[in-house]
Amino acid sequence: MLSPQMPSPEMQLADFQSWLAAHQHRFENVLSRLLPAPDIAPQRLHQAMRYSVLDGGKRVRPLLAFAAGELTGAAQARTDIAAAAVELIHAYSLVHDDMPCMDDDVLRRGKPTCHVEYDEATALLVGDALQSLAFQLLASHPLSDDPAHQIDMIKLLAVASGSRGMAGGQAIDLASVGKPLSVPELEQMHIHKTGALIRAAILLGARCGQADEALLAALERYGHCVGLAFQVVDDVLDSEADTATLGKTAGKDAENDKPTYVTLLGAREAKQMAADLHREALETLTPFGARAQRLCELADFIVLRKY
Amino acid sequence: MLSPQMPSPEMQLADFQSWLAAHQHRFENVLSRLLPAPDIAPQRLHQAMRYSVLDGGKRVRPLLAFAAGELTGAAQARTDIAAAAVELIHAYSLVHDDMPCMDDDVLRRGKPTCHVEYDEATALLVGDALQSLAFQLLASHPLSDDPAHQIDMIKLLAVASGSRGMAGGQAIDLASVGKPLSVPELEQMHIHKTGALIRAAILLGARCGQADEALLAALERYGHCVGLAFQVVDDVLDSEADTATLGKTAGKDAENDKPTYVTLLGAREAKQMAADLHREALETLTPFGARAQRLCELADFIVLRKY
Repeated sequence: MLSPQMPSPEMQLADFQSWLAAHQHRFENVLSRLLPAPDIAPQRLHQAMRYSVLDGGKRVRPLLAFAAGELTGAAQARTDIAAAAVELIHAYSLVHDDMPCMDDDVLRRGKPTCHVEYDEATALLVGDALQSLAFQLLASHPLSDDPAHQIDMIKLLAVASGSRGMAGGQAIDLASVGKPLSVPELEQMHIHKTGALIRAAILLGARCGQADEALLAALERYGHCVGLAFQVVDDVLDSEADTATLGKTAGKDAENDKPTYVTLLGAREAKQMAADLHREALETLTPFGARAQRLCELADFIVLRKY
Repeated sequence: MLSPQMPSPEMQLADFQSWLAAHQHRFENVLSRLLPAPDIAPQRLHQAMRYSVLDGGKRVRPLLAFAAGELTGAAQARTDIAAAAVELIHAYSLVHDDMPCMDDDVLRRGKPTCHVEYDEATALLVGDALQSLAFQLLASHPLSDDPAHQIDMIKLLAVASGSRGMAGGQAIDLASVGKPLSVPELEQMHIHKTGALIRAAILLGARCGQADEALLAALERYGHCVGLAFQVVDDVLDSEADTATLGKTAGKDAENDKPTYVTLLGAREAKQMAADLHREALETLTPFGARAQRLCELADFIVLRKY
């Protein structure tokens, strides 16, 4: 019989799911408050920015920032800002990535993409302005008692977003279309394209609280594993799920002749890779015990999701 | 007869021109050093970033930052970083602005535009990565003895770049094509589209040194005047000069049915407006005497230029 101190797995899952829902709901209001109001000029740009950010996505990066902040005792008001900045960078990258000159996609999070709903020029400016807003947020709110530490956090997001981070990963992705890639080459692409921002979300969330170098190194490793696992699972879902379930066009990778973990490894081995990364992510958190509970649960959530 | 303490106008001009040339030359090396090397992966992206930033332009914004820094006794190493960050934002905006979904221009600074020399997807990423790099620079180098002050400087550039600054001005510009605008509406567009970044260059340069609120307010006013004058002169040149002289396609505004100071006011009145703004810019600097000499000379340079 389970002791009262040890909740059953079902109770734990229910507790995680209510944590998830509460944070997702609350964070939507945070984003809505931090984005320019739709009636402030230039209205159309501000409306398109809100369209591209609000009502959408699982908010995986913000959730990782919140969970890392819980591990380091960070104030919610600080992790909200860090999470919002990361999510704005992510949202801008999706708007630009969907444009005709990149992936040319018409559906995102179950809605027409920004350039379809508005127009291409507006989508270009939406992405540009969301990136500026991300840095504006990090420079407008206190994130640390030490301003020098806050400057380091701004640098961290800038590096993760730029040519040696996310934007660089997209450039590697562009160069890889129609080319045979090895698994290590594919991994390099994803470590930059999606991994850099996922690691930044975790580290920024943690750095809103008390985090020493050893803790940050462990979280960097955890972020590396869940970031790659996230991508492997994405590839599996893209090859197996349908458009209605994903909320974005399914089978795009195969259609665009893009190498994926499924095309390189096969579905069975790709799933095994995701399971191995999942296990390593959880092992990295062992030293932190119950404080890392939400990060463990998010690793489960990322690997076991169906969309 | 002129005293030895008062150099002749010819000597002053020669002195300014050698200041200009020396700073332009030196700054080219600064930018080259701060941009990712062309042999660092992803190479094509880094090469395209360098292509879009180096060997180009009059560097008006950096020169304004240097001149403002001279007024406030700023260290050159600091104004170099501030100037580079502003110039990277400016360069990214040109790359995106030239794309087919915006102005669809093929020539910039006498060279094929980025999307013509590379491709559209690369141009999109070049702009995105240059913006990240601008904030990375401001967060990677000491700009002030007080880190809290440095965070304010980062915020200043973010606001000037975003939806209430430069990107917002471009959105107003998009919305104005083919519409009758009043002169105040046109002014609002330019105050954002080009003015925001020009004011940011001056204020960031000044804030690298010792600047009190009164000084910053005067510089903001100076920046407002030279920013608008810059645009009025641009409109006059676009209507009168030829493509070879400009290094970019002449007559684009009329062709695109964009309202300009020349179409709204006529060439004669537009020139008078530039002259009035020039005079007001110089008056604003009067209290600062010889320390503001370079800023005065730059106001002359901006209004009297032929390309």
